[in-house]
Amino acid sequence: MPELRKDPVVGRWVIISTERGRRPSDFNGSHPPVSNAKVCPFDPGNEDKTPPEVLAYREPGTLPNTPGWTVRVVPNKFPALQIEGGLDRRGEGLYDKMNGIGAHEVIIETSDHTKELSELSQEQIENVLWAFRDRVMDLKNDNRFRYILIFKNHGENAGASLEHSHTQLVATPIIPKVVTEELDGALQHYRMKERCVFCDMIEQEQREGKRIVSENEHFVSFEPFAPRFPFETWILPRSHISAFEDSQRSEFASLAQSLKDTLGRINKALNRPHYNFIVHSAPCRDTRLDYYHWHIEIMPKLTKVAGFEWGSGFYINPTSPEEAAQYLRDIEP
Amino acid sequence: MPELRKDPVVGRWVIISTERGRRPSDFNGSHPPVSNAKVCPFDPGNEDKTPPEVLAYREPGTLPNTPGWTVRVVPNKFPALQIEGGLDRRGEGLYDKMNGIGAHEVIIETSDHTKELSELSQEQIENVLWAFRDRVMDLKNDNRFRYILIFKNHGENAGASLEHSHTQLVATPIIPKVVTEELDGALQHYRMKERCVFCDMIEQEQREGKRIVSENEHFVSFEPFAPRFPFETWILPRSHISAFEDSQRSEFASLAQSLKDTLGRINKALNRPHYNFIVHSAPCRDTRLDYYHWHIEIMPKLTKVAGFEWGSGFYINPTSPEEAAQYLRDIEP
Repeated sequence: MPELRKDPVVGRWVIISTERGRRPSDFNGSHPPVSNAKVCPFDPGNEDKTPPEVLAYREPGTLPNTPGWTVRVVPNKFPALQIEGGLDRRGEGLYDKMNGIGAHEVIIETSDHTKELSELSQEQIENVLWAFRDRVMDLKNDNRFRYILIFKNHGENAGASLEHSHTQLVATPIIPKVVTEELDGALQHYRMKERCVFCDMIEQEQREGKRIVSENEHFVSFEPFAPRFPFETWILPRSHISAFEDSQRSEFASLAQSLKDTLGRINKALNRPHYNFIVHSAPCRDTRLDYYHWHIEIMPKLTKVAGFEWGSGFYINPTSPEEAAQYLRDIEP
Repeated sequence: MPELRKDPVVGRWVIISTERGRRPSDFNGSHPPVSNAKVCPFDPGNEDKTPPEVLAYREPGTLPNTPGWTVRVVPNKFPALQIEGGLDRRGEGLYDKMNGIGAHEVIIETSDHTKELSELSQEQIENVLWAFRDRVMDLKNDNRFRYILIFKNHGENAGASLEHSHTQLVATPIIPKVVTEELDGALQHYRMKERCVFCDMIEQEQREGKRIVSENEHFVSFEPFAPRFPFETWILPRSHISAFEDSQRSEFASLAQSLKDTLGRINKALNRPHYNFIVHSAPCRDTRLDYYHWHIEIMPKLTKVAGFEWGSGFYINPTSPEEAAQYLRDIEP
């Protein structure tokens, strides 16, 4: 059973993952490479190489865990958190811990091993987004979970261990620190101004224009004013919604278009970089917050995080967001 | 002039570094390699390849910026922050920024290009620690600075760009977020218990013993209860001191021994991994805090930080600190 442990000073939680247990002798100074095994467990025909699917969009008449799907969601074979059991919160002197309870799922975005997310059709990307939503709606029924994090690791430098295009979802029994900080900061702004800080940001970005990457009916894509990384890009819905899963149906198509366009520009500008994206959304039990605004943060992996960043929480970014935005705007994706 | 910009939601500062300006075309999907230029600017005889030294411990009779030194401190040739100028704090609509004022120095730990810090003599490591202190004491006279961060990037995966062993120092006009979080957490504990949380931690670690790596007269080295990374190791002074630079003279020798021993064990256990270490110490203007306890955090770079960590602030650690500590204890360094 993985264990959740809390740092007694800064309150940071870590998962001591026994399932992924690595002994000292497993570390030989290098990172485990992206698997290039001949048999990809995410390819059609290899459905038995993953745990049984929890959701699939598939052709009528095809059976679960067989080919015929367009999007398939399975539990992670090496989950960071375990689905069965109680939380069992307990102390150990100064320290706090609990069982590593949670869900860890993989959204296989396409049956085509060779395609990256932005190379899929807009319709297929929309299917992927609907799969995110369907899984979130289902997992919210489990009252042990406080937060559901959707994120993508694309490429080895971004932490991916399989190259077949996929996204991951982790449901956690605690609201993560990064989310709490964002909620607290947004609430503070709301209390001062009675306005959503993200709505204010969209307004200023549209007025100034210099950090905008692209816009469509429902979404705005821009480089944030204080980006941690070169070409860090955020996608925000124009209308104020605090949880991704509460988006209007028409917004899913618009988001698919915006994601395809934005990732396509980044891929073309930076020669298909490794990247992470993270869906920032409201906690499970707070879905209608006036002060919070869900969004996606895309972070190409172009620079390294070193001692200065770890020690300070400051980031040194060698490319201004205005310059990055202009470059991405000027590209024909 | 580099610019300091603040994220309006979470209050994170970033440095948009014009000196290190990288255009989109500079990113080709790979990281800049560690320089293996024939001429190392940190080697004796190449003193003219760095900015003029601000401190050196050298043989009597040798001139500044010539050979004859054992430890040499120079301004970073490509500083993240710039030493000259005023802060000029200003707004831009919703956003806040100021000039990127600060000091960025490099402590060259040895004239021997081939040696890593733990391979130096204990006496030489003590000299390096005295150099840290001398620079901190000098920079504290500049009242624009609120914090002085000392950190080491060793090896390419840890963000080093030169292989000759060195540490860096950055003085910032803001107390960094990571430091503020630690101060806030420690203060909260102190208010509840009227005790320093780090003193409590040392007491519990010594009593339980299972996470201890090594101990000497003045320092304890252990794996923290909730480590972010495999083999993350902290070194704490036994006596309560909030700022590194206020240590007793006898503690410098003891720290040199502890650093050499701890890094030696890590190097042997993990086949000389790339690593960062960070000196966590009180802000410039708060040097006698009852609730804060300076220490060093060492983080070998064995795993990758991916979307889950970026999105949550949670860390997944595949090696328990108890197992790592036992492994390091059992090694003959």
